[in-house]
Amino acid sequence: MFRTHTCGELRAEHIGKEVTLSGWVQKSRDLGGMTFVDLRDRYGITQLAFNMDKNAPLCLEARKLGREFVVQATGTVIERSSKNANIPTGEIEIDVTEFKVLNASKTPPFTIEDQTDGGDELRMQYRYLDLRRNPVQQKLILRNKVALETRKYLDGLGFMDVETPVLIKSTPEGARDFVVPSRMNPGQFYALPQSPQTFKQLLMVSGFDRYYQIVKCFRDEDLRADRQPEFTQIDCEMAFVEQEDILNVFEGLIKHLFAEVKGIEFNEPFSRMTYDEAIHMYGSDKPDLRFGMKFNYLNALQGKGFAIFDQAETVLGIVVEGASEYTRKQLDELTEWVKRPQIGAKGMVYVKYNSDGSIKSSVDKFYSEADFQSLAATHNIKAGDLLLILSGELAKTQKQMNELRLHVAQQEGLRNTGAFCPVWVLDFPLLEKDEASGRYFAMHHPFTSPKVEDIALMDSDPGAIRANAYDLAMNGVELGGGSIRIHDRGLQEKMFSLLGFTPEQAQEQFGFLMGAFEYGAPPHGGLAFGLDRLVATMSGEESIRDFIAFPKNNSGRDTMIDAPSPLEPTQLTELGINILPNGH
Amino acid sequence: MFRTHTCGELRAEHIGKEVTLSGWVQKSRDLGGMTFVDLRDRYGITQLAFNMDKNAPLCLEARKLGREFVVQATGTVIERSSKNANIPTGEIEIDVTEFKVLNASKTPPFTIEDQTDGGDELRMQYRYLDLRRNPVQQKLILRNKVALETRKYLDGLGFMDVETPVLIKSTPEGARDFVVPSRMNPGQFYALPQSPQTFKQLLMVSGFDRYYQIVKCFRDEDLRADRQPEFTQIDCEMAFVEQEDILNVFEGLIKHLFAEVKGIEFNEPFSRMTYDEAIHMYGSDKPDLRFGMKFNYLNALQGKGFAIFDQAETVLGIVVEGASEYTRKQLDELTEWVKRPQIGAKGMVYVKYNSDGSIKSSVDKFYSEADFQSLAATHNIKAGDLLLILSGELAKTQKQMNELRLHVAQQEGLRNTGAFCPVWVLDFPLLEKDEASGRYFAMHHPFTSPKVEDIALMDSDPGAIRANAYDLAMNGVELGGGSIRIHDRGLQEKMFSLLGFTPEQAQEQFGFLMGAFEYGAPPHGGLAFGLDRLVATMSGEESIRDFIAFPKNNSGRDTMIDAPSPLEPTQLTELGINILPNGH
Repeated sequence: MFRTHTCGELRAEHIGKEVTLSGWVQKSRDLGGMTFVDLRDRYGITQLAFNMDKNAPLCLEARKLGREFVVQATGTVIERSSKNANIPTGEIEIDVTEFKVLNASKTPPFTIEDQTDGGDELRMQYRYLDLRRNPVQQKLILRNKVALETRKYLDGLGFMDVETPVLIKSTPEGARDFVVPSRMNPGQFYALPQSPQTFKQLLMVSGFDRYYQIVKCFRDEDLRADRQPEFTQIDCEMAFVEQEDILNVFEGLIKHLFAEVKGIEFNEPFSRMTYDEAIHMYGSDKPDLRFGMKFNYLNALQGKGFAIFDQAETVLGIVVEGASEYTRKQLDELTEWVKRPQIGAKGMVYVKYNSDGSIKSSVDKFYSEADFQSLAATHNIKAGDLLLILSGELAKTQKQMNELRLHVAQQEGLRNTGAFCPVWVLDFPLLEKDEASGRYFAMHHPFTSPKVEDIALMDSDPGAIRANAYDLAMNGVELGGGSIRIHDRGLQEKMFSLLGFTPEQAQEQFGFLMGAFEYGAPPHGGLAFGLDRLVATMSGEESIRDFIAFPKNNSGRDTMIDAPSPLEPTQLTELGINILPNGH
Repeated sequence: MFRTHTCGELRAEHIGKEVTLSGWVQKSRDLGGMTFVDLRDRYGITQLAFNMDKNAPLCLEARKLGREFVVQATGTVIERSSKNANIPTGEIEIDVTEFKVLNASKTPPFTIEDQTDGGDELRMQYRYLDLRRNPVQQKLILRNKVALETRKYLDGLGFMDVETPVLIKSTPEGARDFVVPSRMNPGQFYALPQSPQTFKQLLMVSGFDRYYQIVKCFRDEDLRADRQPEFTQIDCEMAFVEQEDILNVFEGLIKHLFAEVKGIEFNEPFSRMTYDEAIHMYGSDKPDLRFGMKFNYLNALQGKGFAIFDQAETVLGIVVEGASEYTRKQLDELTEWVKRPQIGAKGMVYVKYNSDGSIKSSVDKFYSEADFQSLAATHNIKAGDLLLILSGELAKTQKQMNELRLHVAQQEGLRNTGAFCPVWVLDFPLLEKDEASGRYFAMHHPFTSPKVEDIALMDSDPGAIRANAYDLAMNGVELGGGSIRIHDRGLQEKMFSLLGFTPEQAQEQFGFLMGAFEYGAPPHGGLAFGLDRLVATMSGEESIRDFIAFPKNNSGRDTMIDAPSPLEPTQLTELGINILPNGH
């Protein structure tokens, strides 16, 4: 037996007991007469004490222990002379009578501390050491809790966990699939699922009624900080439901998770707004509601001779409360920031409503103080506030203003406040038009149902059709989304035709699903949450990477195991494929 | 709202209540004045009643409902005139006042009944209809329960669910990997994991202490009835443990599952035997202990002039109790059965110990009645029993006799008795020698630790080394297995060298793991159960296929979605690969 207790377990009540602990050497201090070793495991830290007077040989041995050595120690729990109130085991220490090095350790390439001296690349290469650090362990512990509480909640509501296949069929729609050559079917490939979408719909056709799965999904896309080639979804589907039923169940799930895992209760129903409202007020379908700064449409500034505004489709302003004292330098920096190619604004106008009642703007020669006073009255701008204005085409300006709003909020410290502001965004458009090709694409996916009252628009004005589709956003992050699905073969065929499929293509790729709709498919709908993002958002963090035990880097590589890697030529031959010269 | 209740919910206490149900038409009966429709969902069946006298138009509409139509019906719960004690809703029916066809259905290609008229191929092609059948739904419901109870049990013991990556590195060891070409790293490939083995060991190095995951694994092997290219494991690992700790925890898991899911309590500790004992007594490392028929070593029959026995390395017998009356035809059939190439015996000898005390054998000219009497005394053979004998090389004969034992037990009805007989098989050999190449292979995997007392044999007699490796078998099925792992770099290097790796190959493929062993790796070990097989065994079934929602056929195809399938040429180009002419 390697231990009688963990390193986080012993308290004053254990004093006098003989115990055995196993763990890692966090640090050791040699005080001449005494040597103290902090022994660490997942559960905590316990101090081992070695006394020169009582047992010099043992104490001398203990002095040789290096950081991260794995040690098994036996001794008596005694009261500490100088207690440590910072750790739960701080009242006791172990008077060690015997110990054994279970494994030695080289000096780690970075410190195993909350604040490590290791850079990102080194941490990823030695991820097994990085995972020893408490902040990283806590993130995975949180993830584990969220997953288990999700299961408990959904199981309690009669949802069934059904595993769907990982080796499926490639479909050219949407993002790129990862594919898997089939040795038994030469020249043919499986694809890894981007989501279990069609399978969960088939489960509804099969009568499973309520399905969930916490499932790996895969997308071969160029990576960003918050994207991984493999990611995990809480994937759900329900039959015989309307949108409201789904929103209720999954608002309940999020409330359950916050209550159980973080001890946070949401007493009010989650906010709701339509997609159109979200774009109008925040320029984003995932608005951050932790702070105000709603968009103000400043038509009043048009027709006063300022050509840039006069020629613009829209003039948009946000009010930064109490920011009238921004310096010229700060305002110039903001102007430069919005002019960066990633944002793409041509410029920025500001109006300072100073605390002393005076007003100063970057367009003073076009507007009178009365113009600005009138604006203040209409838009509730107070002395001490700063008005930031962008103008141009409506959709572009809304997007730019969304970025500016988030950027200013970040600067003002309004984003990392510990607050959690969920909002359901409803009535997404069914389709979006690719301006270059003039083709329509599904905004959610091709299985999303149009609103019944908008079905007539499928022939006349497809771009205006609203879908029974919804997202849950929190703090500017899309936690998940879903839709009521099409369950009628004719409507599904029409949808594929709007998306530019020939009937033959639709049949070849999704014939199994449309076939299923002919054998008594019930009305159904569902939703999926991104687990990685959910746990990151619950922790108030933006990057999902540390919430994944073994993440890939931005080139899709696992630098620890050095994957991907070349295959043996015999493996390729067996699979019936070869590599094109120069890769592509 | 589509329903107020499910089709399995209404009882006599609901009589008088107005309700709305939604479900599928199981069948309908037209009795002239009345029409009855059985409405089905996952939860049960409720009878809808339509009365010609009360509402002729509605009743006429109801008569048009076909099998598997999806219907929403509203009406009043009334007492049935003729109750049906076979279903929980049998005391009531719905006096329907209004109904709506939510979706029509073509006539299904096979009946949606417990005993269907659909063949395997048709059922797989229309799997979404097959999944409507109650026996198939019950299998997936059981699977769901087993998975959730596994999580509850392990979570209760402090095990953490940690997701390990699906896109990993290919290693030429063992079974074939499925591979995934990397677009971002041309010419390189990920592999899909055959198990999360190295990752769970790294989690132990990281201090996670107790890990579990219910996880998809992949093996590109030629398929058999009980093999699927993707399969699910309950994968577990623990640090600071000895073998006994692991056996206790997972014996507890299996007991928990049987108690919670099947209401079966195992009051005794599970049987245990060594690998050597299992092979000696049953010729199998997964003996079926639901019945006796242990092997008898019949050396007494040698040296009596029967050349076949005299030249054999071993003479093995099993006693079939009460089977002395087997006919000549039955015995000939058994002889033919063991002579089939799959079994490979040269012949079979029988001795009938008849109920009247007489003895009749197929080798009467070589042995006296006294010889057989003496055998009976030694091996406890009783009047009425049948002794079946095979002979030849030891290992081959043990294997053949194992097959014969199982075959006879099947015939005698000893295998499907509802009994569950678990047994831990311990002390597996570390290595097995491939006779053709003379090379050693890891019996479990290259990370399995030899027994400390056998380490010295690594230089002198590798084949004799016993491992700290164990399997749990039940009813002749291997439910799972595991081992104490190597946690020392030197020992791991030695193991790789025994397996024929050069130091460079070992470093290239497993350098990350051996590197991790240098930074304080704790003693650790673990185990994995095959979830598909576990639930099949718990259900007393041999095939795992119906315990998987969407299984592949024996060619690795999903005939419903028609996968795998060819890719678009542009997809191949993007991946930097092309297809070899003629497949291979």
